[in-house]
Amino acid sequence: MIGRKLCARLAAGSAIDGRPIEAAHLIDVVTPAPPAGARFATLCEALDVAAPTAAAKAIAARPDVVFHLAAVVSGEAESDFAKGYAVNLDATRALFEAIRLEHERSNGAYRPRLIYASSIAVFGAPFPETIDDDFLAAPLTSYGAQKAIVELLIADYSRRGILDGVALRLPTVVVRPGPANRAVSGFFSSIIREPLSGREAILPAPEATRLWCASPRAAVGFFVHAAALDLAALGPRRSLTMPGISTTVGEQIEALRRAGGDSAVRRIHRQPDESSARIVSGWPGRFAARRALALGFAAESSFDEIVRVYLEDDHVPAVA
Amino acid sequence: MIGRKLCARLAAGSAIDGRPIEAAHLIDVVTPAPPAGARFATLCEALDVAAPTAAAKAIAARPDVVFHLAAVVSGEAESDFAKGYAVNLDATRALFEAIRLEHERSNGAYRPRLIYASSIAVFGAPFPETIDDDFLAAPLTSYGAQKAIVELLIADYSRRGILDGVALRLPTVVVRPGPANRAVSGFFSSIIREPLSGREAILPAPEATRLWCASPRAAVGFFVHAAALDLAALGPRRSLTMPGISTTVGEQIEALRRAGGDSAVRRIHRQPDESSARIVSGWPGRFAARRALALGFAAESSFDEIVRVYLEDDHVPAVA
Repeated sequence: MIGRKLCARLAAGSAIDGRPIEAAHLIDVVTPAPPAGARFATLCEALDVAAPTAAAKAIAARPDVVFHLAAVVSGEAESDFAKGYAVNLDATRALFEAIRLEHERSNGAYRPRLIYASSIAVFGAPFPETIDDDFLAAPLTSYGAQKAIVELLIADYSRRGILDGVALRLPTVVVRPGPANRAVSGFFSSIIREPLSGREAILPAPEATRLWCASPRAAVGFFVHAAALDLAALGPRRSLTMPGISTTVGEQIEALRRAGGDSAVRRIHRQPDESSARIVSGWPGRFAARRALALGFAAESSFDEIVRVYLEDDHVPAVA
Repeated sequence: MIGRKLCARLAAGSAIDGRPIEAAHLIDVVTPAPPAGARFATLCEALDVAAPTAAAKAIAARPDVVFHLAAVVSGEAESDFAKGYAVNLDATRALFEAIRLEHERSNGAYRPRLIYASSIAVFGAPFPETIDDDFLAAPLTSYGAQKAIVELLIADYSRRGILDGVALRLPTVVVRPGPANRAVSGFFSSIIREPLSGREAILPAPEATRLWCASPRAAVGFFVHAAALDLAALGPRRSLTMPGISTTVGEQIEALRRAGGDSAVRRIHRQPDESSARIVSGWPGRFAARRALALGFAAESSFDEIVRVYLEDDHVPAVA
């Protein structure tokens, strides 16, 4: 979803950091659609990133910038241990090794920018009230562990000069357009999206559940901003917690009420699910994100703004 | 070195947590010597842990306790990128996967205690004056990155109930008995060991260099203590910074003077080496280690005590 929106944004600008984009190679597990209006050549390819030759194919043309968003989501990485590690860790490392091979073949000249979709799932309770940039990564899911491991690889490969990488720790992205994926966090979006389209939604976690969130538009903005940033300013610490807003499910529901009225709120059905509640209760809800803010990354300032962004970018009105 | 001393200690007690040791399987890249005086069967095997079948062989007999100390040291992991990852990451993960296979074959009954030799090299500058237990792992060497990655794997495999693991972040271990290995930290030991045996030693880093250190005897004590500890008390955070003392190279030299006189100190030759100095200047020098201390882990309280332990355990007098 973020990948598709990122392609659309890149197509609209057709440049990164003022340099025109010459070509784009879009890879997904099913053939991705080329973005509309791009002023550059686009190769759209279906590749399973976990397949043995996928990494070499992705890097064969020596792209200057690599956006790596492919992942098995949190719920699936938890239910299928082996698949989570195969896709989220091994396939990512294979990509970095393919880059290392081209780096060596080019006698060090090839050193692409690499922007990785990490997640605040690298953090696990107990937390201080506000999490600072030097707080430890102690994930409580296999998904979070895999993201944290890749962050360490990115820092090491960057320090070695093999690539110039940054891991963007994305907040929970809401409101995601439908349909739901298997991420445990899916309900944070569905309790807004579904009622606004006249459908019912299930809330498996308590209203006091606090989340750190940003819109899909803001998330795409993080990637575009990182592509143009001088990463040398980061030094050796290549993981950045992205800005967002700290809000509770209860506050989300009040924002829904302001946007869609009481009738929308009545479409949310409380259905406590211990497993989901336990997982999200271990998630972090409030960050300082000082480094990212100082580097110019920006997100929304209220949940009402996030709802407005959803209505502008992705809302599908109910069929009367 | 630590492995050999650990075997000797286990042989001397021939029990873990009051339970007699039935058998030990010792694995090293060259056939290890059986420890003297053990009241249990000992199988000594030469295995390259990076070989494809090594992990399955190590786990075939379903050991109750696994001590994992095998590693390519920091200097070599820095000079040989691929070898460092192959041994320090891939071989370790293969071991964990071999455990997972036996865990599944036994319908979850097999869940060994696993004690891993991690390192304070998981930390990288800049640091606060004292590093607390929730400070981030931001290594500045490939060795440190590999250790930090394995820590995340141990936490995740433990959370999943596949094994019951703990990563002991060892301080710099001094005074190591000779000969020197390829660890960058080798000089911290050789500037004490060599002069006390009437030989010359080279000091490549400034006297102000601060280190967090413990003796080999204390390091072995950490492993023995961890083997008998109820790891459930750790919760999901399975990495523990071990206690030690914070000292400078200059203070080390004064302790050497007290133990061996001015003639010993005169055998240290300052030979500044930018690469070593840069690496060790990025190492952390002072920790709180609160969690480990609360759990009963203990180290020396002065560098003089560390020198005394060396003289008692490992010193080889100069041949007149």
